[in-house]
Amino acid sequence: MKWNAWGDPALASDLSDSIKGLLVSALGLDTDAPAELAAADVELTPSRLTADDVAALDGLLGTDHVSIADGDRLYRAGGKSTPDLLRRKQAHQEAPDGVVAPGTDEEVLAVLQWCADAGVAVVPFGGGTSVVGGLDPEDGGLRAVISLDLRRFDALIDLDAESGQARLGAGVTGPAAEEMLGTQGFSIGHFPQSFKFATIGGFAAARSSGQASAGYGRFDDMVTALTVVTPQSIARFGVAPKSAAGPDLRQLFVGSEGTLGVITDVTVRVHKVPETTLHEAWHFPDFATGAAALRAVAQRGIGPTVMRLSDEVETGINLANPSGIGDEKAAPVPPGGVLAVTTYEGDEAAAQARKLLTADLFTSLGGQSVGAGPAEAWEHGRFNAPYLRDSLLAVGAGCETLETVTTWSNLSTLKTAVTDALTAALGESGSLALVMCHISHVYPTGASLYFTVIYKQIGEPVAQWQAAKAAANQAITSVGASITHHHAVGADHRPWLAAEIGDTGVTVLRAVKEALDPKGILNPGKLIP
Amino acid sequence: MKWNAWGDPALASDLSDSIKGLLVSALGLDTDAPAELAAADVELTPSRLTADDVAALDGLLGTDHVSIADGDRLYRAGGKSTPDLLRRKQAHQEAPDGVVAPGTDEEVLAVLQWCADAGVAVVPFGGGTSVVGGLDPEDGGLRAVISLDLRRFDALIDLDAESGQARLGAGVTGPAAEEMLGTQGFSIGHFPQSFKFATIGGFAAARSSGQASAGYGRFDDMVTALTVVTPQSIARFGVAPKSAAGPDLRQLFVGSEGTLGVITDVTVRVHKVPETTLHEAWHFPDFATGAAALRAVAQRGIGPTVMRLSDEVETGINLANPSGIGDEKAAPVPPGGVLAVTTYEGDEAAAQARKLLTADLFTSLGGQSVGAGPAEAWEHGRFNAPYLRDSLLAVGAGCETLETVTTWSNLSTLKTAVTDALTAALGESGSLALVMCHISHVYPTGASLYFTVIYKQIGEPVAQWQAAKAAANQAITSVGASITHHHAVGADHRPWLAAEIGDTGVTVLRAVKEALDPKGILNPGKLIP
Repeated sequence: MKWNAWGDPALASDLSDSIKGLLVSALGLDTDAPAELAAADVELTPSRLTADDVAALDGLLGTDHVSIADGDRLYRAGGKSTPDLLRRKQAHQEAPDGVVAPGTDEEVLAVLQWCADAGVAVVPFGGGTSVVGGLDPEDGGLRAVISLDLRRFDALIDLDAESGQARLGAGVTGPAAEEMLGTQGFSIGHFPQSFKFATIGGFAAARSSGQASAGYGRFDDMVTALTVVTPQSIARFGVAPKSAAGPDLRQLFVGSEGTLGVITDVTVRVHKVPETTLHEAWHFPDFATGAAALRAVAQRGIGPTVMRLSDEVETGINLANPSGIGDEKAAPVPPGGVLAVTTYEGDEAAAQARKLLTADLFTSLGGQSVGAGPAEAWEHGRFNAPYLRDSLLAVGAGCETLETVTTWSNLSTLKTAVTDALTAALGESGSLALVMCHISHVYPTGASLYFTVIYKQIGEPVAQWQAAKAAANQAITSVGASITHHHAVGADHRPWLAAEIGDTGVTVLRAVKEALDPKGILNPGKLIP
Repeated sequence: MKWNAWGDPALASDLSDSIKGLLVSALGLDTDAPAELAAADVELTPSRLTADDVAALDGLLGTDHVSIADGDRLYRAGGKSTPDLLRRKQAHQEAPDGVVAPGTDEEVLAVLQWCADAGVAVVPFGGGTSVVGGLDPEDGGLRAVISLDLRRFDALIDLDAESGQARLGAGVTGPAAEEMLGTQGFSIGHFPQSFKFATIGGFAAARSSGQASAGYGRFDDMVTALTVVTPQSIARFGVAPKSAAGPDLRQLFVGSEGTLGVITDVTVRVHKVPETTLHEAWHFPDFATGAAALRAVAQRGIGPTVMRLSDEVETGINLANPSGIGDEKAAPVPPGGVLAVTTYEGDEAAAQARKLLTADLFTSLGGQSVGAGPAEAWEHGRFNAPYLRDSLLAVGAGCETLETVTTWSNLSTLKTAVTDALTAALGESGSLALVMCHISHVYPTGASLYFTVIYKQIGEPVAQWQAAKAAANQAITSVGASITHHHAVGADHRPWLAAEIGDTGVTVLRAVKEALDPKGILNPGKLIP
């Protein structure tokens, strides 16, 4: 992962001529990128850890696993939201005061106890892919803040092949998990946009949802047990798939974003590597018709592994295939209308049956099959969108995504409200806003909406986006939708959480926080209002 | 519901000659039932509510909705576990000091605030079907305890047909919900054994799971929102099907068993009344082979709406069809082996596809179809088992059920441990134990086991069963399974909860309790250690 952009430098993509043309004509941008700021030229806030602090941490973890070097601190100075990346272009930057990498639950406990005694805040760090400010180095009024990197929790601890579940260290990345399990014939099937870099612990802490959620569920559905280290204890939750033994405490720590404890390992449901993957893309005359068809499939309860529907704008610009944006030959769909992508994984008989049942239903509801091609193209390019953002930001365009979820009956209202809010807020800043949307996750009772917005950076770019994002959040809240479907709360959504969970919800979260983390060292300024 | 037995007096069943023969030969019982104790002959603990208390409650709710009459109190003196029913045979009985029936959230809040001020405990009451002591009239050291009956929360508040969800009052019974929704073409599909009497609020509070869980999920899966009244607030949780907005607080109140607040309404996922229901029963050579087949279906992710597997003993005694126990003509299955029951609900195409896929898999794994008959017979008699228990208890047999859940790889160990524990403990009391078992709920990573045990009452019957139950609980805990899959914790499982959720889990529950119910009025002595 790059310190100031997404992912693997080798995969960074130049803008195609067609998208450059779009930027010039629609946004009036000059597409020659200025030189990038070098990490060595960043003036970082000096570490506030004393020599005694470092010596104490060295004593707990060994000198190899404690650092106050600028390079280590800068790398963990934030996540990968557009504001994060814009901040990485500034001459002066904030960062945690040190980085520690404990290797066992007991070492995590020792670090947390030392921090509680020493008055030092802790930001747990996995893959560094937060897009909601979940990694902001906030000290919560304490005298320093350290990043607790979980990279040494990198093992497949146990695979129970009969039960179909695997216990994985919190620092295992998506690809590492798939590789370790794959050699034994299993897969998790969790493929969020952040898959290549994000970690098992992060998926749990941020209540992630992957592109194959229609088939394999959200990450919170997959978690059967987890280990959480608080400043007072090493705790484990989950003895069975489901239980009636009181509240499901797994679901209190899943989504806790490092504020209640540090998740060090997670037991997740796994499945056999699928025999087959079938692909089929569908054309619908408009978004409403397509959404009704996806709803019918979701409410039937049998259908695809992946099911997504782009709206008219996104279909037109071909964002369903980010690597082919503006490249018309990649999308052989009828003109106009909207594109849905489906895949079917599993044994051959079941996958074929699900594909046929879905095809019949889609056809009866106004869909037209456009073959496997666009679905395969989507699958091929599905992790590449963030690279496009890097290239856009470099030339002075703004680009960000945001997501929400509501009931089917409220979906159209929500889509309009968010689109209008973004358009109006960016318009006030002086820019056009190109707002695209797709349904990325479906449930029997509702669906998520995932928005991508492209605009022109004008004025102070962080403030410009924050105003637009605030308008979108306000729109989401005002129509009764959730402030986030799978990006989590972090610092960025925190001001809107109370509107969603109410005073009693806030009281509950604060009470649990106070009981487990009375000194308030765990990820201050995130999640809990 | 009868005050001292299950359900509808009109449905009480005499024991068949064949089961009488079994009781005589195996347990040495005399099958002539003694005369039943009349409610009027019970000496009830006098109400400790003062005239001022009653006047205050009358002022809040109206005199029609406040009672200290013995009949009203006795009816709410406990649930329907075997110990509950044995206690209903005693001359002196405990009961709550009064019964109130508020009609609005604001009235519930007013009652709770009055109770907090007055030092009076509250036991929420729905259908009265708890089998874990969840309704025990414990005062928690306060000066009195009242039963808060939710029967006036009896409305279908809203049906969102497009989203497929319905908001129902907590006091709506299973049949009332199905009837109100059915007239509009919808169904919840939640059919636990307690269905005929239990309520929507109870399903949520006790984290219920119904017989069609393979198709429609557990009740906790179905809940999309709920209203909870605490002594301080009227709160609502759940704005979307799923969300990443922090911990899922719905899953903290689902399963809270009246200890954190009173659930007054629940929004649940509903589905269209199925076009068709297909039935097929299967014979497997033994329980292990059948369990492996169920596992394969659960891990594939497409299969039946109902899927159950009786073990050899239960298959032999035909408890899969309680109304036909000992009646061989009702079960035309091959001799020996075990019986599985499946049903498939939905539209015709999907139901047929699921049935065919399952049949192919079952056949490949050693199953033999025995046609629709036994599955239809099971469905017909599926709510009748508790009536059989009443008849058995009346003639001096003991009969109780208990359930647990674990991973597939631990299932056989768990089954043996519980069977052995029950057999040994009842053997110590001087009785044979007939222990039957079935898999009633399946998940990709594990399954529940539901045990029925029949024995001879010897000595003090409540103590006799409690010793056997304690042995079973100890066996469950020692093999790492959950103390309950769908019966909840109540008073009876409470001593075993800490072993399952650990010190940190107990700390969390106590912290939430302290924040929401600082006076400790809500269902004392239940759930929270």
